[in-house]
Amino acid sequence: MEKFVININREIFNENTAKISVLDRGFLYGDSVYEATRTFNRKGFRLEQHIDRLFSSAEKIYLQPTLSKQEIITEVNKTIAASLFENISIRIILSRGNNSDLGLDPDLALTNNLIIITKEIKPNPSWWYETGVSMIFHKKASSNVGPLAKAGNYIENMLAYRDAKHQGAFDAIMINPDGFITEGTTSNIWLVKNGRIYTPPLSVGILEGLTRKTLLEVDQTIEEKKLIAQDFLEADECFLSSTTRDLVPVISIDNHQIGTGTPGQVTLKLLSQYRDYVTKDR
Amino acid sequence: MEKFVININREIFNENTAKISVLDRGFLYGDSVYEATRTFNRKGFRLEQHIDRLFSSAEKIYLQPTLSKQEIITEVNKTIAASLFENISIRIILSRGNNSDLGLDPDLALTNNLIIITKEIKPNPSWWYETGVSMIFHKKASSNVGPLAKAGNYIENMLAYRDAKHQGAFDAIMINPDGFITEGTTSNIWLVKNGRIYTPPLSVGILEGLTRKTLLEVDQTIEEKKLIAQDFLEADECFLSSTTRDLVPVISIDNHQIGTGTPGQVTLKLLSQYRDYVTKDR
Repeated sequence: MEKFVININREIFNENTAKISVLDRGFLYGDSVYEATRTFNRKGFRLEQHIDRLFSSAEKIYLQPTLSKQEIITEVNKTIAASLFENISIRIILSRGNNSDLGLDPDLALTNNLIIITKEIKPNPSWWYETGVSMIFHKKASSNVGPLAKAGNYIENMLAYRDAKHQGAFDAIMINPDGFITEGTTSNIWLVKNGRIYTPPLSVGILEGLTRKTLLEVDQTIEEKKLIAQDFLEADECFLSSTTRDLVPVISIDNHQIGTGTPGQVTLKLLSQYRDYVTKDR
Repeated sequence: MEKFVININREIFNENTAKISVLDRGFLYGDSVYEATRTFNRKGFRLEQHIDRLFSSAEKIYLQPTLSKQEIITEVNKTIAASLFENISIRIILSRGNNSDLGLDPDLALTNNLIIITKEIKPNPSWWYETGVSMIFHKKASSNVGPLAKAGNYIENMLAYRDAKHQGAFDAIMINPDGFITEGTTSNIWLVKNGRIYTPPLSVGILEGLTRKTLLEVDQTIEEKKLIAQDFLEADECFLSSTTRDLVPVISIDNHQIGTGTPGQVTLKLLSQYRDYVTKDR
């Protein structure tokens, strides 16, 4: 197993010792919210924005944080400091807490559990940029369930990811019940057409990715637009974005070649601009 | 806290010592399946059927059990034997296991975790049968997400329950996006009209409740029929069923009185037949 550094309720553990109660509601019902970010140069990337969004997710499911934003940021920084790695991914989970009894009632929760899991990020494989990756489309059975909170209910995305993998693809691009493209299973999705970059708007039912938000700052000509599968199949280039993977060029979807079938110039230029931007954005 | 007896991967713990890794996928993503049952006279109720259904849920999310059905039943019985209580509720959770890395990919799971949580069941409060309970309707944002597996993704039902509670009601009755009544948040739902009993069919998107199945055995005149909210509002009686709560009479929905606004005779007779049946059904 890799080297994890894990903070549970303000104490540091490793992967062998980091345990929570089986009565934790995150475990019992997925009743938790989370954020995923990373470090650049040993500093947490946009931590305040992530913690703001964590609190916003929490509010949407009526989860009352028992720690302040600043206390959580302090714990994240403590966890980063305890890691030996130059670049780490950071998962911040706030669960409603341990249940005092079996039952869905959120009032059965005692006090929140805060879990911060960090692990080394390895550099992205070079073939992602030489060859590009393949994707599949996945039609979602539902609009985003309930409020747009980043919550511990991830089975549908997991099944979509698994389906992609079993078809030899890198990941899945989700389509909402109205036929609009939303996002990857853990990423945002973008296309390039005639030199312009497009990505779906938040209104199709996606959470505002912070890497997505950063890309919209880096290139302010990018347009948010409702897109359908056909728009992607007819695109010149396609790529996905995520905080832990930056940008990844997509060269086929459902075995249909996108553009020239190689990582596109617009994508690679934006990746370079993004990396410059985030390493300066301290 | 109440007295729990908890089995984790074949070892017995109490509520203070029962812990699992924060890398468990049930905790990270709700990537687990579960069953809830109870004892009657210190024996597990329909354990084999529950374990069959657990395996069926597991198959739907491609979770490969590493223990046999018989091994799990043995662990459940060991846990029952370790409890001092006459009647206990039993939650059996099979998670895909601890992740070797952060990531949705189900292949990152090492080996399953089996968790069996038991706790005393107190007798149902007498007011449920004297006064009856109130419910609300809750429109689901989605059809049942993905496969009809009993999985650890329960936020929507939890929010519906919370909404009911905040309106002073006992629980919520869910309506699917097509307008058909499905179930309670952790129960099945029934109505009585002109002496006949009706409950929604599985085709509206509900999991086959084992208490539901038992009731259909107890009274073979009960009809499965697609029902809408209006059918409930115009019913003579209404009740919910669950393994841990048996039958509970419902006397109002969304503040609209059902029938005479008191627990109905057909409901109470069926409850009595059900209790006779399950205490003999060993």
